[in-house]
Parts: sequence; C-alpha cells; structure tokens
Amino acid sequence: MTGEKSEFVSLYERERKKIEKKLHSALADRKPFSLYKPAAYILQSGGKRLRPLLVLFSAKAAGGKFSAVYNAAAAVELLHNFTLVHDDIMDNAGKRRGRDTLHKKYDLSTAILAGDSLLSVAYEYLLKDCNGNAKQVLSSFTKGLVEVCEGQSLDKEFETRKNVSIDEYLLMINKKTAAMAEMCCTIGAILGGGGKSEIKALAEYGKNIGMAFQIQDDLLDISANEKKFGKVVGGDLVEGKKTFLFLKAMKIARGNDKKMLQKLIVQKGISKSEVPQYKTLYEKLGVIEESKKEIKFYSDKALSSIKKIKKKEDRKLFSELVDSLIKRNK
Amino acid sequence: MTGEKSEFVSLYERERKKIEKKLHSALADRKPFSLYKPAAYILQSGGKRLRPLLVLFSAKAAGGKFSAVYNAAAAVELLHNFTLVHDDIMDNAGKRRGRDTLHKKYDLSTAILAGDSLLSVAYEYLLKDCNGNAKQVLSSFTKGLVEVCEGQSLDKEFETRKNVSIDEYLLMINKKTAAMAEMCCTIGAILGGGGKSEIKALAEYGKNIGMAFQIQDDLLDISANEKKFGKVVGGDLVEGKKTFLFLKAMKIARGNDKKMLQKLIVQKGISKSEVPQYKTLYEKLGVIEESKKEIKFYSDKALSSIKKIKKKEDRKLFSELVDSLIKRNK
Repeated sequence: MTGEKSEFVSLYERERKKIEKKLHSALADRKPFSLYKPAAYILQSGGKRLRPLLVLFSAKAAGGKFSAVYNAAAAVELLHNFTLVHDDIMDNAGKRRGRDTLHKKYDLSTAILAGDSLLSVAYEYLLKDCNGNAKQVLSSFTKGLVEVCEGQSLDKEFETRKNVSIDEYLLMINKKTAAMAEMCCTIGAILGGGGKSEIKALAEYGKNIGMAFQIQDDLLDISANEKKFGKVVGGDLVEGKKTFLFLKAMKIARGNDKKMLQKLIVQKGISKSEVPQYKTLYEKLGVIEESKKEIKFYSDKALSSIKKIKKKEDRKLFSELVDSLIKRNK
Repeated sequence: MTGEKSEFVSLYERERKKIEKKLHSALADRKPFSLYKPAAYILQSGGKRLRPLLVLFSAKAAGGKFSAVYNAAAAVELLHNFTLVHDDIMDNAGKRRGRDTLHKKYDLSTAILAGDSLLSVAYEYLLKDCNGNAKQVLSSFTKGLVEVCEGQSLDKEFETRKNVSIDEYLLMINKKTAAMAEMCCTIGAILGGGGKSEIKALAEYGKNIGMAFQIQDDLLDISANEKKFGKVVGGDLVEGKKTFLFLKAMKIARGNDKKMLQKLIVQKGISKSEVPQYKTLYEKLGVIEESKKEIKFYSDKALSSIKKIKKKEDRKLFSELVDSLIKRNK
C-alpha cells in the first residue's frame, strides 16, 4: 500500500514539475514586462496544480498521451489563476499562500489587467493543443469560464443575503469549483481522443471530485491542524462566510444555538476568540459528521463514474487522486 | 453623392439595429441577475458598434453573408465592452457616454466580474458561428485579446513615464485599438470563407482604419465642436494624456514652448482654462496638420488594401466607412 502510494506521489511530483516549467515559459520573455511580470508573480505562488493534473489524467484515460496536452494543462491553471487574482480583489484579501496578493504587491489596475491577461494567455495555450476538435474543446473551456463567473457572483451575493439554502450553496460551488474540474476532465478527454461515453464519465468524475473538494475545504477550515493547514483555523467563521457547515448548522439549530449562528450573519463574522465555541456547536449539531458524509457522497459518485474507464492503471490514478484529496490537510 | 451616402447610412442603421437586438438577447434572461444585469447595463450605453460592422462587411467581402456572422459580430462588441468596463476602473472614470460608469453605478467587485463575464459570453457567441474554422477564428480573436491587454498596459505605463516616443505611442495604439479592428476584419473574412489573400487584405484594412481612428480620436479632443463632440474639448490635456498631438508637439517644440508642454507632464495635466493656450501652441507647431497627415496616411493604406476585394459594392462599403470615420465629429 505504501509502495503504491509513493508511485502515485512520484508521478504527481514529476508531472507537476513539467507543468511548472510550462507555466513559467508561458509568460517569460513576453512584453510589456509591466504586464507579464505581475502576471507571473501569481503563478509563482505554487499550489497543488490539481486542475492541470485532471487534464493529463483524463487525456491518458481517454487513450491519449500526457505529452499532447501540456499546453491545455497550463491553460486551465492560467484560467484558475485569473480567477484567483480577481477574486482576491473582490474579497479584499491581503495574503495568498503567505505572500501579498497581486493588488497589494502592485496596485488595483495592475491586478485587474494581469488577471485579464492570464485569461488571454490561457486561451492562447489551449489553442496550441487543439486541432479538428477546437470547437468542442473551446466550447467546454468557455462554459467553464462562464460558470466560474456566475459562481463567483453567487458567492458575492450570498455574502449580503440573510438566507441561503443548502441547494443554493450547492449550486454556487457547482459553478465556482465543480464546473471547472468538470471542464478540465472534459477537455482532457476530448484532446485524448475519447468517445462520448468516456468524455461523459470523466466529466462526471471531475464535477463530483470538485464538489467533494470544496466541501472538504469548508470542513478543513474548522477541523484542520493549524500548523499543517497554514491558515488560521476558523477563518471562514471570522469572515462570516456561509459555508456548507454553517448552512447545515443553521438548518438544524434551534433556540439559543440558532441565535448564536444568526449573530454571525448579522455581525458579518465573529472574533477569533469565539471560534472554539462555534466549533463546539458544530460538533454538537453534528454538522462535522454531516459534511464528512457529503464529501463521501460526492467522492463515491466520482469513483463510481470511473468504473467505465478501460485501463486498470488509469482507474487507479483517479482513485488515488480522490484519496489524496480527501486525506489532505490543507 | 447624397443619394449614395444615405444608402450607406441606412445600411449601417439597419445592421446596427440587428446587432443591438443580438447584444440584448445575449444577456437577457441569464442568471444570476446580480451578474448579468450590470453586464447588460454597459451594453445599453450604445456606441457606434463599429467593430461588429467590420465583421459583417468583411464576411460579405470574403464571399459570405451577414446572416452567418451576427453572433461573431456580437462577440467582438462584447469583447470591446469588457475592455471598456475594466479600463474605466483603471482610469477611475466616473462617466461614459453621459451615464455613470459600471463601477460607479454598482461597485468595484460587480464591475470586475461583469467585465469578466462579458468576455466569457463573447467567446460563447463567437463559437456559435464557428465550424471547421474554429481554431483559426478563435486564434485570431485570442490574439486580439492578448494585444488589447498589452496595449492597455502600455497606455497605463505611459501615464507615469516622462518620455514616450512617437514609435512607442504607435505601438501602443496598434495594440490597444488597431489590433482589435484587424481581428474583427480577420474573423469576418475567415467566417465568410475568404482565401488567404482576401483575409490578409481585410486584416490590413482593419489595422489601418484602427490606427486612423485612434489618431482621429486624439485630434477630435482638441479640434471638435464641443456641442457635437458631447465631451469637454481638451479633456486629454486636462488629464495629462500623452496623445499623438502632444508627443508630436514635444518633438518639435523648443524653448518656452517645450517648457509649457513639460509642465503638463510634471503636473499630470493642466486646468481647463489653459486649454486654449495649448490649442494655440498646437496650431503654431503645426501638430494639428501633422496629425491630419497621419490620419490620411493610414486611411490611404486602408483604402489601398481593399483594392483586392472582388466586388465593387463591397469596396464601396469599406471606402464609405473610412469616409464616415474621418468626417465624424464624435
């Protein structure tokens, strides 16, 4: 088991390095530097590079090769970073992965434009790997972009709304996170030469792993080990975010418990010192368990959809990817 | 002559109405409203819809039909409006065509996201009119997007630089304005089924008309009739913009004239009451005449490139379009 794990990890690490190289070369030496240097700054923050990996794995599972889709893999990461830069402005965030956000490091105009240009280069790179399938690939990529904008808009809308239902929350993360993972798998599958049913199965995998990933993110905010997490535990509560756990708690709670939760909405967040009380409440209401169940629901759906993938070794990659995401601590 | 004019004008008006309708339907009924209502707001500001017209005319000149490229025509206008929304934020502009800019009417986050979503819908609409030619069309569109970001970055960079050469200025407007017009003609020509030489000729037309258009814009700022212009005459001087006329003046001026121009750079603009003095200086230095010559240079290049277009009626459309832009007063 340990041997198998390390095979997956070493493959991940090897491919991640190739993706880093491709991302670096996508912006290096481009002019004007006043545009591309800031754009390159956000790419240097690292990250899991999960989305490019979904493109690679899907292309291989559909019968293609990693080597034919590195530009497309870079494209989805460029698109992802475009969303990070603009989201950080909208969230007024000062730090990302321990570094200043782009608009803090430079200024607002530079950040808006660097974001736009990351998106433009994303399309440029995606097109490099397209041939007769360009319309299909670009349509899927564009659908992902449309949805991520809609998801972000819903997310911002929820910030000021008093009532948000679990269904609305699920629609929001579907658009903001899952649609993007679905798109990564879809374009990988198309570029890899997959048939209709393979493309559909991989798209399903992507969508469900995206849902699981986002709810896991909400769960980690309250249950993670602060040192390994690298962020303040309970940050979502402090910011007054309506996470899966919070909305589930709101649905279950009654009396004083409900009042305590409503306080977070009215005051648009709580103080850091109050986090342990809320964690205790979450535990009492069982929403930590509820969210674990929900993560398992989507992970299982993802795993079920890859049964249709031909090769055992590919199914194993996808299954290990689910494992690594569920067991992650940041 | 008057009869001919009105034929062109009525064609323009007729097609503009169809484009308006297409643009309206591109965003109507889309959800979430919190995203698409602000996005629709900027489209309602009107405008010349010149870029869609270039797509239509080019498609027809290349052997295609207007009816096959209305989605692509809408796409270039959506892309243009994406740039307007983000540029207005960067320029801290409060008004556009007499109405509040998007970030003033709503807020910063809404404007950034509405801009992003205009771009996403632009790609969606462009893809509707693509078939086997998707890679070529999308590559050209994306090249236009890459360049408009680069052009805007140069424009912002020039604001804080003391020295900008005429060549640098020409590169900037090439990227910020001309590349977009070139792209409109290119995708129209490809979608219309044009051959290599037709695509090239139409692309040249677009690029040169774009250059002429931008220098004309700079000229109108100082020479327009304020009532017809609809903007404050000399606004570029007040804002301290390094226009074609200003940079040409800087190159020619000596002694006190030069000092007066340098004052604009150091103080980042002049007061409205000083505009007449600067206009007199421009006249004395001959830069009004110089810019007219430059506009003629690019207009002539545009007209020369359309000689290769087969049908006389199409050549006439393009030639009348040049006329209408050169003789415009706003």
